[in-house]
Amino acid sequence: MKENKKTIIVFSNDMDKVLASFVIATGAAAMGDEVTMFFTFWGLNVLRDPKKKSKGKSFLEKMFGWMMPKGINRLPLSKMNFLGLGPILMKYMMRKKNVQSLNEMLKQAQELGIKLVACSMSMDVMGIKKEELIDGVEIGGVATYLAEASEAGLNLFI
Amino acid sequence: MKENKKTIIVFSNDMDKVLASFVIATGAAAMGDEVTMFFTFWGLNVLRDPKKKSKGKSFLEKMFGWMMPKGINRLPLSKMNFLGLGPILMKYMMRKKNVQSLNEMLKQAQELGIKLVACSMSMDVMGIKKEELIDGVEIGGVATYLAEASEAGLNLFI
Amino acid sequence: MKENKKTIIVFSNDMDKVLASFVIATGAAAMGDEVTMFFTFWGLNVLRDPKKKSKGKSFLEKMFGWMMPKGINRLPLSKMNFLGLGPILMKYMMRKKNVQSLNEMLKQAQELGIKLVACSMSMDVMGIKKEELIDGVEIGGVATYLAEASEAGLNLFI
Repeated sequence: MKENKKTIIVFSNDMDKVLASFVIATGAAAMGDEVTMFFTFWGLNVLRDPKKKSKGKSFLEKMFGWMMPKGINRLPLSKMNFLGLGPILMKYMMRKKNVQSLNEMLKQAQELGIKLVACSMSMDVMGIKKEELIDGVEIGGVATYLAEASEAGLNLFI
Repeated sequence: MKENKKTIIVFSNDMDKVLASFVIATGAAAMGDEVTMFFTFWGLNVLRDPKKKSKGKSFLEKMFGWMMPKGINRLPLSKMNFLGLGPILMKYMMRKKNVQSLNEMLKQAQELGIKLVACSMSMDVMGIKKEELIDGVEIGGVATYLAEASEAGLNLFI
Repeated sequence: MKENKKTIIVFSNDMDKVLASFVIATGAAAMGDEVTMFFTFWGLNVLRDPKKKSKGKSFLEKMFGWMMPKGINRLPLSKMNFLGLGPILMKYMMRKKNVQSLNEMLKQAQELGIKLVACSMSMDVMGIKKEELIDGVEIGGVATYLAEASEAGLNLFI
């Protein structure tokens, strides 16, 4: 086991939970740890690039895509979302208190060498294609996750 | 510590979170790991057998039972549930993409020797009796969980 | 790594999830383990003392404070909350089955020497001040968490 290895499963696309994931991940990576973040289910929306599109989707896959938040800037809050007012207030408070935005944390995560993995099974079920995701994302399944988590010293499901 | 030992607390009865739990658990067991799943609170509903009934419940206990999903085939989605339409769509997509159903995963989990433990305290508080649960489930408390988790290499709370 | 060291991140302020956190934490501490609980985001509300007030808050910070549950006795359920009826029923069932109340568990946690840490970044963003929290709480950031979690044998995110 490697104490300096860490994995986080980002299952949620709630802004607050995604924020917690990135604070822990970038904090650990900044201290020299080897960090892998696995984005699965709703968490996949964090990795969707709002500027990219994908062809050849079925009607149902398109519908799923429309209904889910497209990209890290459009995530709802898990509580007190108030039809989108909550996230605006939260972003305002973060800026005022000099906390990095989620988008900046994502960029920092990539600069720090954090491995970003999108779950292949969820992508398949929800009809999300690789060409819709931001650059620098790997695709992996449960075997990839287990191989990393088995030797990591800290594993969280968020 | 045993790297090949894993525990998952299934707290939620959301179909998507239960699915993530079983994908990780069966994936690990298929690779030879020793896996224990602890079902607590809402997660207990995953283990309820829709064909079984229980006598001697108080009115409040019966009411709790009626309001919660009865069994692994009736779980809601944590997001986009749409009064039950979401889970139907999700099941349809899973079938189309050749992903096992939750019910099949549960059976596979038992065949792979995954230990399924129902939390005794939650059963007591929510008025769920052993005779309502599917066969092959053990009953355990927090001490059981801690004994297993303390020596496991991967512990998740889902 | 120390097998007898455990950390729990309490992210949620849902009564059921907070209950699960305290059952695991006090269970482990009663068996002699060294336990740290980190309260972050909504979880901070667990540590708010309803009898304490704070001055010098901005309008937005006050508004956040009003809208969130103030203290461990006022937490909602994550499911079946029914505008506050759910938690009342849950408390009634817990009392009837001789399960400790959340408030008693919190006191027991402090008596057992469980370290309670409030996340400094979330306090800052949500405008929660130290003087509003119950006595005996430490303040810490992500570095504090990572230092403890890296050497702990069990780390959960609830």
